[in-house]
Amino acid sequence: MSKKPLILVTNDDGITAPGIRVLIEVMSSIGDVVVVAPNSPQSGMGHAITLDSTLHIERINPTSETAVEYSCSGTPADCVKLGIREILDRRPDLCVSGINHGSNASINVIYSGTMSAALEAGIEGIPAIGFSLLDYKWSANFDAAKPFVKTIAENVLKNGLPKDVVLNVNIPNVEKNNIKGIKVCRQAKGNWEEVFDKRKNPQGKDYYWLSGKFVNLDNKEDTDEWALENNYISIVPTLFDLTAHKHIEFLNTWNLNDE
Amino acid sequence: MSKKPLILVTNDDGITAPGIRVLIEVMSSIGDVVVVAPNSPQSGMGHAITLDSTLHIERINPTSETAVEYSCSGTPADCVKLGIREILDRRPDLCVSGINHGSNASINVIYSGTMSAALEAGIEGIPAIGFSLLDYKWSANFDAAKPFVKTIAENVLKNGLPKDVVLNVNIPNVEKNNIKGIKVCRQAKGNWEEVFDKRKNPQGKDYYWLSGKFVNLDNKEDTDEWALENNYISIVPTLFDLTAHKHIEFLNTWNLNDE
Repeated sequence: MSKKPLILVTNDDGITAPGIRVLIEVMSSIGDVVVVAPNSPQSGMGHAITLDSTLHIERINPTSETAVEYSCSGTPADCVKLGIREILDRRPDLCVSGINHGSNASINVIYSGTMSAALEAGIEGIPAIGFSLLDYKWSANFDAAKPFVKTIAENVLKNGLPKDVVLNVNIPNVEKNNIKGIKVCRQAKGNWEEVFDKRKNPQGKDYYWLSGKFVNLDNKEDTDEWALENNYISIVPTLFDLTAHKHIEFLNTWNLNDE
Repeated sequence: MSKKPLILVTNDDGITAPGIRVLIEVMSSIGDVVVVAPNSPQSGMGHAITLDSTLHIERINPTSETAVEYSCSGTPADCVKLGIREILDRRPDLCVSGINHGSNASINVIYSGTMSAALEAGIEGIPAIGFSLLDYKWSANFDAAKPFVKTIAENVLKNGLPKDVVLNVNIPNVEKNNIKGIKVCRQAKGNWEEVFDKRKNPQGKDYYWLSGKFVNLDNKEDTDEWALENNYISIVPTLFDLTAHKHIEFLNTWNLNDE
């Protein structure tokens, strides 16, 4: 049995996306890689799972000699569940998701299929990282990202992660020489100002495209948005216990049971 | 202009689900109700949004004289975005989602379309609550839930909610007389032990159904799972800032920039 770490790779842009190819390449230099990724793009899928339809898996020809690859009909979270329960013969030492084409900083973490895959692995107790590059284009250049992705993954393998914490890593879209370093951050407050693009179909019926612009509502220097704007790679330790612990006391002042 | 609060109602089981009918009925007794809900079941959709296809809205005949209802082709999060940006002529005072057929306690919050709708409203700064009854059946009995749903909604309208906090309310499936009260709780640690039910289609090709069993990994008495098992209604204040603030320091010990 190999002593190399076993690394489960997935994403939300689909198994044919350039970003996952880069992640497979980097992970193949540090471990045994098994890829289980969606057979079509799943951006904006959040933490969706497939309950009402069936799931299919196909083993496909890998692009790297050291990787084994499966294409799956499900969501990113489905891929991680299938990978762990049905495909891998032992628990992975690490799960990495991405490299996403586009930011998952600030509130984007909530909508992110990339991060939902990493969180799903985290729920299973597997150290997990979501990687994203701030370039939506299919032709995005991942060269600058590679050494940092490797460093971060190696650190997680070496140091482990706190229980119930997953890393959300975002990488600015600049040349390697312009990357100032890696910063541990918190999630910036922000939201999307949606604009619904209302159109008429050929039958005259209204329909909408969801569109909009991200608005950063947080100008502090300890946030992921600040780090990225200043050419740092951001790492946000991310939870799946969503409890607002510090507000439990406030709610207890409501005396909800007094009637 | 009405002085009654404006309440946006949505869900993830779809606009025809019995649970949303109960929520519309209760909310109509305390405010002006506008319903924007999915035209088909969206369970397990997590925080998915529709980026790759178009969205349609139909105004439908309401079941209550005080409610206005729209059926939407999108996910629960899409419904809230469309409701706020395109349908409502003023900001709602409250957004309620549900009543879900089935639990969204513990880790289920992550997969929940019901809670993603509430969180989406919370991101927009609107006080929001997700309600769920611990009965998956379409024929679930919501009678015991009604007065508690009303009490909680009225308290949120009266007291407001802390910024960036949304309520996750779960209701045990017991008679009203057996409900012991309402408890403010934290999200219990737990996960799903998935079993993939592997089958062959008529052409001999493998496919899977996702199935499994929820496992509560937390036996403390301050959790939502404990409350529900002991016939309390659980309220968990829930965040969309996923930062693990207390682990930032640990990650800073890694010296990621020393090479």
